[in-house]
Amino acid sequence: MTPEDFRAYGHQLVDWVADYWRRLAEQPATLPVQPPVKPGQVAGQLPSKPPAHGEPIEAVLADLDQIITPATTHWQHPGFFGYFPANTSGPSVLGDLISSGLGTQGMLWSTGPAATELETVMLDWLVDLLGLPARFHSHGPGGGVIQDSASSAALVATLAALHRASDGAWRTAGVDRRYTVYTSTEGHSSIEKAVRIAGLGESALRLVEVDPQTLAMRPDALRDQLAADRAAGATPALVVATIGTTSTTAIDPLPQIGEICTQEQVWLHVDAAYAGSAAVCPELRWTHAGVAHADSYCFDPHKWLLTGFDCDAFWVADRAELVAALTVLPEYLRNAATSTGAVIDYRDWQVPLGRRFRALKLWFVLRWYGAEGLRAHIRHGVALAARFADLVRADDRFELVTDHPFALVCFRLRGGDDASNERLLTRLNAAGEVFLTHTRVNGRYTLRLAVGSPHTTEETIDALWRDLRRLAELA
Amino acid sequence: MTPEDFRAYGHQLVDWVADYWRRLAEQPATLPVQPPVKPGQVAGQLPSKPPAHGEPIEAVLADLDQIITPATTHWQHPGFFGYFPANTSGPSVLGDLISSGLGTQGMLWSTGPAATELETVMLDWLVDLLGLPARFHSHGPGGGVIQDSASSAALVATLAALHRASDGAWRTAGVDRRYTVYTSTEGHSSIEKAVRIAGLGESALRLVEVDPQTLAMRPDALRDQLAADRAAGATPALVVATIGTTSTTAIDPLPQIGEICTQEQVWLHVDAAYAGSAAVCPELRWTHAGVAHADSYCFDPHKWLLTGFDCDAFWVADRAELVAALTVLPEYLRNAATSTGAVIDYRDWQVPLGRRFRALKLWFVLRWYGAEGLRAHIRHGVALAARFADLVRADDRFELVTDHPFALVCFRLRGGDDASNERLLTRLNAAGEVFLTHTRVNGRYTLRLAVGSPHTTEETIDALWRDLRRLAELA
Ligand SMILES: Cc1ncc(COP(=O)(O)O)c(C=O)c1O
Ligand SMILES: Cc1ncc(COP(=O)(O)O)c(C=O)c1O
Repeated sequence: MTPEDFRAYGHQLVDWVADYWRRLAEQPATLPVQPPVKPGQVAGQLPSKPPAHGEPIEAVLADLDQIITPATTHWQHPGFFGYFPANTSGPSVLGDLISSGLGTQGMLWSTGPAATELETVMLDWLVDLLGLPARFHSHGPGGGVIQDSASSAALVATLAALHRASDGAWRTAGVDRRYTVYTSTEGHSSIEKAVRIAGLGESALRLVEVDPQTLAMRPDALRDQLAADRAAGATPALVVATIGTTSTTAIDPLPQIGEICTQEQVWLHVDAAYAGSAAVCPELRWTHAGVAHADSYCFDPHKWLLTGFDCDAFWVADRAELVAALTVLPEYLRNAATSTGAVIDYRDWQVPLGRRFRALKLWFVLRWYGAEGLRAHIRHGVALAARFADLVRADDRFELVTDHPFALVCFRLRGGDDASNERLLTRLNAAGEVFLTHTRVNGRYTLRLAVGSPHTTEETIDALWRDLRRLAELA
Repeated sequence: MTPEDFRAYGHQLVDWVADYWRRLAEQPATLPVQPPVKPGQVAGQLPSKPPAHGEPIEAVLADLDQIITPATTHWQHPGFFGYFPANTSGPSVLGDLISSGLGTQGMLWSTGPAATELETVMLDWLVDLLGLPARFHSHGPGGGVIQDSASSAALVATLAALHRASDGAWRTAGVDRRYTVYTSTEGHSSIEKAVRIAGLGESALRLVEVDPQTLAMRPDALRDQLAADRAAGATPALVVATIGTTSTTAIDPLPQIGEICTQEQVWLHVDAAYAGSAAVCPELRWTHAGVAHADSYCFDPHKWLLTGFDCDAFWVADRAELVAALTVLPEYLRNAATSTGAVIDYRDWQVPLGRRFRALKLWFVLRWYGAEGLRAHIRHGVALAARFADLVRADDRFELVTDHPFALVCFRLRGGDDASNERLLTRLNAAGEVFLTHTRVNGRYTLRLAVGSPHTTEETIDALWRDLRRLAELA
């Protein structure tokens, strides 16, 4: 494909995206959030072998419209309220387009000086923007890096914690003793996965009790568990505290947990995958109280900061520890810049070797919106969630299940059993105008409404509420 | 940013990419492959804080041109011969643009039915295109998935191997015995990293001797090492064989290695990160002899198949084993489709939870080029490498260090010591017209020329050769 072909097709595809977004914003009803697709439906419409000879882009676009889009869950839809959001934005897509075009592979500083340094600066900007502890800033011994996901960040934090807990023996000896890892019963499943991947086995994971009211980790329970494990000869290596749990956005009490970790000399990783973005708003910084205790911290700009997946921002207070845990330096990667020690080679901060120039999309987003623009985005979501919560609160047939400090509201039919709530959710989603998911809170089936799309309006919320009230009659 | 803003800026940025590619192809001398950048130069030109208020895209584009591009290593440059290539293409960028615009997060089939099924079909297409064993096809118990990198593929293979070697105990118990992992002394550093991440410690890694001539793993040495480890009470879990080692593209003897792995019941992972793409050409399939023994196999379309980073294609012969090793199913991810068992949830095939719709770029590439177009691309690289090798062979001052089955040529000054070869490389790269990297072969400093860019021509090679001959006088 010549550059001129690319120019022509590129314009066409930009138009495709612009039209798609327009339709999502202006005629959302024409695109069901989650379309009625049957397993095998997409595969069944595609040839079983690749073409022998090249095909025109027009043929691909026709299949895109006829096969792919109709079988796509529209995460950017104003009625998408499932899981946590994963919203992108114009500037994010533009930045990523440049990244794709440059095709830089920034495994080393020397293979992408601009990619490396822009990433360091963007992570420093975020420290400032979120009011994170200065120890995460690259000017000192700390620093930040983009991981693909909060799951990978949890894994990398686990590895650095094992390196520290073993005084460096882990690199050579592996898991040579009984390590233990702590998170609350509401901690994300990626902690369990990281523990398993790191070779500790699920038996090493301690799910610390939460307060049944707040669903936040109980510091006393953490302290007791740590003591019991030490008494049993285990080596506590890592505590993962969550700001904004997946199920209900509970906030673990970092001031107390942090103190315990300091006393016990255990690595504290803070997982703020979703809720971290809220810290761009000064009035929501209280959710991050105690974060200065963290040895590492992550949040996902790809969840709630208008940056397309994948983009997890991850910091450590001591980058030397992280690099020591992960570095490998074969001959073919040696180079003059690395040997000076004056540069960051991000391959040593992550699992993969190669890396995309992901800082560009963040740069485009942070500059296009500016701090105030991003605050407006977060406030928009928080306000819509509050509007919805008010409606729920005012209606006897429903109840709020937990607080809603961010833009997630957990609710259910008051007095309804699990089956009736599940039926309600199924019916609500069936029309395709909205998509919500569920969780269980203290064992009970609960609906979750997570606001995130910049296209969601008060009218989206009000229409959803009308549907809910109507369906509650049937439930 | 409204859809109409995006449309206008999008056209502008597509033009930026088209102009950049045109310049790389038509005036490569105006862009030094590796620009003379000093550590801190990019960071020093950027503000230390994010802007309070949004800025226009024009301001970002100005900085892109003045700060970022001049400090970028141009991986798409026709004179980029370093490491292994990471070439993208027009259709790849177009496919990725659609992926960014859709913003689908396909962690589950239900959160991206089209993303999931297109990925399965693309990996099936690749089985056909590369002539890989039918057991990798999703119609049977096997199947493929896109990982970000060959490094992550090696990690995931290691985890599945541990799961198997422990009869499933590893998930709960972790590394509860002495496992061992095998690759050759020429195996990629990502194997060492995977072993470390999996908690086995570097002491678990056996670097099996290679034949000093071919640099391929010696099956007898593998057999001896396995026997010695078993005798010492270790549990061999994984052998990683390489098709196309990083240093010299050596090919491990899979027929013999595979037989040993079958007898010893050890998981065989085949790492064809770079060289896998060559198998699109029937005349290069001999390099994959014995691949039917593999329990898992990976190659990087992002290296040599015109698909932008990141895109590693990874297959297992038994997907149930892989999923059993990696699955976690918290309440908030339960859904009707998953519970039927009729769908693939790719989050259980990888480390991260979330996932981008990466199959789109592969789909665009495979359809635009077709099998024949991709073969032409591979043959172009192989022919240019052969042309260069002929020039080296015909000149007394140089010597070829190894065979060149693919598009990598390893060479050095005949009789020159390490220092003179290193000087030669430094001087050759200094002008910015080409960029090569080095390795050590049997301890001796060796230059590597890896052809990959579709823009590289005979004239690029001949000009490089003229430079080399001139510089050889000075060395
Ligand atoms: C608290 C928390 N941690 C981690 C994750 C995992 O996110 P990712 O897909 O970035 O791995 C999630 C996802 O929802 C989350 O809510
Ligand atoms: C043989 C081999 N395996 C693995 C890798 C790692 O590649 P990735 O960046 O995809 O992890 C490379 C990179 O050059 C390689 O040559």
